[in-house]
Formats: sequence, C-alpha cells, structure tokens
Amino acid sequence: MGEKIIGILGGMGPEATADLFFRIIRATPVQRDQDHYRVIIDSNSKIADRTPAILGTGPSPLPMMVETGKNLERAGADFLLLPCNTAHFFHSMIQAELGIPLLHMIRLSAKHIKDNYPDVKRVGLQASDGTIASKLYHEAYGEYGIEIITPGEGSQKDVMDAIYRDIKTGDLENGGKLLHRVAVELIGAGSDAVICGCTEVSLVLHDGDISVPVVDPLQVLAEEAVKLASG
Amino acid sequence: MGEKIIGILGGMGPEATADLFFRIIRATPVQRDQDHYRVIIDSNSKIADRTPAILGTGPSPLPMMVETGKNLERAGADFLLLPCNTAHFFHSMIQAELGIPLLHMIRLSAKHIKDNYPDVKRVGLQASDGTIASKLYHEAYGEYGIEIITPGEGSQKDVMDAIYRDIKTGDLENGGKLLHRVAVELIGAGSDAVICGCTEVSLVLHDGDISVPVVDPLQVLAEEAVKLASG
Repeated sequence: MGEKIIGILGGMGPEATADLFFRIIRATPVQRDQDHYRVIIDSNSKIADRTPAILGTGPSPLPMMVETGKNLERAGADFLLLPCNTAHFFHSMIQAELGIPLLHMIRLSAKHIKDNYPDVKRVGLQASDGTIASKLYHEAYGEYGIEIITPGEGSQKDVMDAIYRDIKTGDLENGGKLLHRVAVELIGAGSDAVICGCTEVSLVLHDGDISVPVVDPLQVLAEEAVKLASG
Repeated sequence: MGEKIIGILGGMGPEATADLFFRIIRATPVQRDQDHYRVIIDSNSKIADRTPAILGTGPSPLPMMVETGKNLERAGADFLLLPCNTAHFFHSMIQAELGIPLLHMIRLSAKHIKDNYPDVKRVGLQASDGTIASKLYHEAYGEYGIEIITPGEGSQKDVMDAIYRDIKTGDLENGGKLLHRVAVELIGAGSDAVICGCTEVSLVLHDGDISVPVVDPLQVLAEEAVKLASG
C-alpha cells in the first residue's frame, strides 16, 4: 500500500514526544483506527541534556541518540522525527550513522514560513540557550533571507526558567505566562512572527495567542510526517 | 540502576495509546527529563479490529499483536502494556509467545477496586460489544466478588456509537455526552461505581464527573507501570 512507518527519536523531553504523537494522530484524516499510520516511538529520556553538551559543560548525548535511532530503524521505522530543537545540533552526526532519513524540523519550519508567510522578514525566537548558541535557526532561516531576533539577556533567562524549571517539571501554567510575556517583548523588538524554537514552548504558545503569527516547528514536523507516511 | 523499560503494544486505538503515554509521564515524579522512564511504543494501528474478531465477523488481530509484542521485546522493553480492553481477550495467547510480562489491565483494575473501594459490590461497565461478549470483566471482577452491570440494549448501542462513530474519529464532545448519559443510567440500575471499560471511554469520562466513583483501568495501568519501572 506504499504507506510508511513513522519513527520518533524521542524523550527529549517525553512530554514533547507525546505531544508530537498526538499532533500526528490529529493531522491524519481517519474513519477508523486502521486508517492511522503506524508510529514507533523510543522515548529515551536517559539521553543526556543537549544544552550543557553544546555549551561544553556536560556529556555528549550523541552516542545514545545514535543508539536510539538505530533501535527505531531495526524496529521498522522508514523515517525518523526528532522532537527536540536543541538536539538538531547533532542532526548530521546522527544522520550519518543511519540508513533511513532523519527529518530536519528547523529547516522544514524555515521553508514553511517562506511558503506561507512570504512577507515575514524577522522572526522572534523562543529557544534554549543551546539552540541559540548553536545558531541552528540563524543558519536555516538565513538561507531564506529571514532574520532571527532573540530575547534580551534577562528575558532569555526567563525562557530557560520556563522550559527547565516549569514546563519540563509539569508546571505549564507558570511557564506559559513567562513565555507569553517574552513573546510580547519580541514583537516590540520588531518580530513579524514568533517561533516556538523549543518543544516545551510548543506546549504552551499557540497561534492566535499573540498579535503576530506563532509558527510551531513541531506542528510543521507532524504535518510533514503525515504527508510522507501516506507514501 | 535497576530501572525497567516500559513497552506499549499500542495502536488500538492510537489516541488511547498516546493518552496512556501522557498518563505515565504525569504519574512519574521528576525534576528533569532524565528522571522519566524510557518508554518504547509500537502504535501499530494496522492491527485488525478486536470486536468483530471476537464476535466472529472479522479477521483475527492475534498474529499482528504477537508480531508487535515481539518487536517491542527486541527493541528492549522489559514489560508490556496493552492499552485496549477488548484486546485482553487475546492476552494469554499473546503472553504465551513473549519472553517478557504483558500486564493485564482488567485484572489490575479489579484488584484496585478491591483495595481502594472495599464497599463497592456492583459496578457499571461501559465497554465495547466485544469486551462484554468476551466476559473479560465478569470473570476478573467475579474473582473479587464484584458484580458487573451492563447497559440495556439501546444504551449499549449508544456506547458503541460513542466509541466508534465519535471518539475514534476525533469527536470527543459528542461521544462524551452519550457516555455521561449512559453512566447516569448505570447508577440508576444500582452501580456503586462506573468502569471506563474501553480506552476511548477513558478519554472522556473522569472521576468526579458523576455521583459515584469512576474507575479508569487505563490510569490504574499507568500507575502500575510507573511502580514496576522504578525497579
């Protein structure tokens, strides 16, 4: 039938992994269970934190990410999703070890903006210190002529608190409040759109919440996965 | 560290599978991603529908359930969860083919009621025709001296519509309305508690919604999984 099996290299964090799974389910038009695509998930929460590794203060998550990707490939996945923005720093290194494609959420989101919001020239980025330091968004969006605006130092600390202190431990309400405040600040600084540049941000900031479009790379990834899986 | 890897033999349906994954995440006390348990999920939505197979009008889901269970065992799962009540009709046949334990959600829920609601003697069951015909609940609860009350014929048709026509296709609102009406009827018939005997029911009927306790085997399973995974 040409359908493909979706694999999710997850656990970074588990909540974002579950959220992506739900988004894939909801993005699939069905009349019955069997119309859904098969999805295999390895939510390997034991993978080391990405931000300290990129900043040079923690162990590398790479070996365990590769092992988890290979596990999914052996289990039958035809392509893989990586629901963690910061983990994309290691994208090419993981891809080199695998025989199946690993989609690149950040590049897909840049193309999505170019295709759907051609007037957007500057986007506000809510992301972890690791993602910002890695310049992942700056490079991918730069190829489409889109400039990245990041929060000021104090507000970036609020973004990190919202991600690590609040959302990753289950306090979505407080994390959401912090991120909505930073989003308004990014609009004040000239952002034509705001990017959920961390999967924890995707859990609490949604399109329609603020006066400019909210672009959610996790949703772009879910929709691309459904398109690819249809064969 | 003695921690175990949780496997989910899922896809029956995918939404209930994702819901169980979320319940496991929320039942785990954490300070950081790495405190979560590793969870491997094969959401194999291609497995044939369980109810027609039990009623003798459809193909057997057993071969594909066994294949999916073995896939999870190879991928590293230490024990398996089966988030579909009706699928428990095949529990012993799947277990016989596996080298790791497959938890029995229905027996666990019966023990949960005995331990936590010792005064409950009769429970109202909201479940698929297949689950009711299989007598899965009648047998497991009978061992604890708990009587099962099922909806009348017309109301059972409403339960099936809520599960298949509404909830499995994403209309949780309408499905929820139907099931709440049937729950009230089951209380009128003498139920001391109501059981979410289908994972689609678990998505819309919650404890506190009605005048008697709502017991949700999917939640009992999530909490048991977290306890087992801690080693």
